[in-house]
Order: sequence, then C-alpha cells, then structure tokens
Amino acid sequence: LPLIEVHLEKNLFDLRHEELSKAIHDAQIDALEIPPDDLFQVFSPHSPAELRFDATYNGVDRQHLLLIRITMVHRYSVEIKRKLYVTIVEKLEGLGIRREDVLIAVVENGFEDWYAGRA
Amino acid sequence: LPLIEVHLEKNLFDLRHEELSKAIHDAQIDALEIPPDDLFQVFSPHSPAELRFDATYNGVDRQHLLLIRITMVHRYSVEIKRKLYVTIVEKLEGLGIRREDVLIAVVENGFEDWYAGRA
Amino acid sequence: LPLIEVHLEKNLFDLRHEELSKAIHDAQIDALEIPPDDLFQVFSPHSPAELRFDATYNGVDRQHLLLIRITMVHRYSVEIKRKLYVTIVEKLEGLGIRREDVLIAVVENGFEDWYAGRA
Repeated sequence: LPLIEVHLEKNLFDLRHEELSKAIHDAQIDALEIPPDDLFQVFSPHSPAELRFDATYNGVDRQHLLLIRITMVHRYSVEIKRKLYVTIVEKLEGLGIRREDVLIAVVENGFEDWYAGRA
Repeated sequence: LPLIEVHLEKNLFDLRHEELSKAIHDAQIDALEIPPDDLFQVFSPHSPAELRFDATYNGVDRQHLLLIRITMVHRYSVEIKRKLYVTIVEKLEGLGIRREDVLIAVVENGFEDWYAGRA
Repeated sequence: LPLIEVHLEKNLFDLRHEELSKAIHDAQIDALEIPPDDLFQVFSPHSPAELRFDATYNGVDRQHLLLIRITMVHRYSVEIKRKLYVTIVEKLEGLGIRREDVLIAVVENGFEDWYAGRA
C-alpha cells in the first residue's frame, strides 16, 4: 500500500497523466513487487511559480520539478528503495521526462497506520 | 495536534465540505479525545483524473477515492488508531460516503516537530 | 534536502510568493546551515474554505492558516528545530504575516529515502 502523491506542472499533467500514472505504478510493481491492483495515486498539478527549485543542486542540470512523495510501510531494504528510484526515473525517461528533474521523497509508517476501504 | 489533509473530488468538496470537516473532527474528538479546539484541516479538491485507484484492491468495491492523511504525534496505541479509522468512516457514512471509498494514512512525528502559533 | 510544502490562501500566494519563498529558504539556511542551493518548495494555494482551523487553539489569536510542512532527514537536535521555527516566523513577520497564523509540521526520514536528480 504505497501511497503516491505527485506534484508536477499542469502542462505536463494535462498532456501525459495517463502515461505518468502507469510508469510510476509499473516501477512499483517491478521494484517492490506489489500486486498490480495496489494502486493509490494523487496528482496535484501546479503552475510553474508554485514549484520552486535550484537548477543545479546535487550537481545536476535541473529544468523542471516533478516531485513524487511516497508513503509506505517500513519494510523495504535500502537496496530495494534504490532500485525503486532507478526504476521510476528509467520509466519516466521513456516518456521524455529528464531524470534530473525528478525528486523522490519517501516517508515510512507501520501496517497499523492504514485504512483501505475496510477495517 | 493531529494535522488532517483531505484529498477528494471537487464535486464532493463543493457540496459537503462543512459536514465533512465536522465529521472528521468529531471522530478525532471521540477516538483520540483531543480538545475540540484542536482543529487543523487542509482540503485539496481534485478533478477525477487526479485521483487514481484500483476499484477492487483489498477486496472491496471502490467507486471513488477520499484520502485522509493524518500527521500526528507518536503516542496512540494500535487499538486507538483502529478506533479512529472506524469512527471516521462511520461518521462519513452518515454523509453518504461509502466506507469502501475511504483511504486513511497516518504518519507520526514527535512533540518537538510542531509549531502552532507560538514557540 | 529539506522538502518544503506550503499551504496558504490564494490571495497571499498571488501577492507575496517570491518573498515567502525567500523568507522560508533564508530561515533554513540560517537555522539548519543548509547550502543555499538546497531549495525544494511546493506551494499549494487554497480558497479560504479549504483551510480550516480553530481561532484560539494553543492560546493564540489565529486569523489565517499558513501551513508549512517540512520533510527532512532525522539529524537535527530539538534545539535546532526550535531555532528553525523561530527563524521562519521571524522572517515571515517581516512580510506582515502574523506568527500566530503559522503552523509548522516536521516529518523525518533517512538519507536513503531521497532521490534528487541522480542516483
């Protein structure tokens, strides 16, 4: 039950949201081995002025900001997390999204911290 | 000081936001025994395309997505958390919101992780 | 790599977003001693009805709600966090924002929980 929240430019959302959703979800299936029906994503489109970032932080050439926040249970190794990030940016790259423009932030919780449609 | 963030369809927000706010807040008062004036809620209305979910994950018939994110201090037992979820969905059910459509995600922090109007 | 998410009234965002961004970022540089290019901020403007709060909770006279969510690595002492909050509200006060109207919530994660433009 990872919960995905994506903050991105409105133009990009309007043009590609179906493909973005699928790319991020497929990356989760590949890297975390979640079942395909474990899909919860909230997209928040923004005007460019609402997304503020430095163009060179961390030694990259950043042109846009696509933020992916992931809330998930504390159970994955560091290695699996890194595989998740790489898989996400590789799949997004297939849609023309530069990996330099992606920011991913994970926050973890416990199994007892979720309600998904039934107790 | 639980902080409540609700992501929901714009239509539902426009029609029912006063009642939704009250239902969720009342559930917190009942289950967590917070003081009635401990109210901080941020609602984010979305178009349907921005809320993506699987219709059957976790063995339920899901038709919409109403996401409630709760950030609160790590101090409540698993039993109290479960009571909170059940109380929220029961009160929302009184507004015609199906419990199958609700997703709740809790993230915890410490007392030192808050500033609420004064140091 | 603190990630800053600001939820505020649309009017305030439209009038002051450049200065708000700078004030919050300068506070981080002063209090956390982050490098100046470590800037990631997402602003979400809201209608007043979307921001719900109690006017007196915590013994203050609250008139608006400006929520600052901070996701950052678990590495700062309680003293540094308090300095961060005080520095933020002092700098916002310079823009005419009342410190009573500010709510700050921190959630922490680990170094392995970030991807910022490259693996």
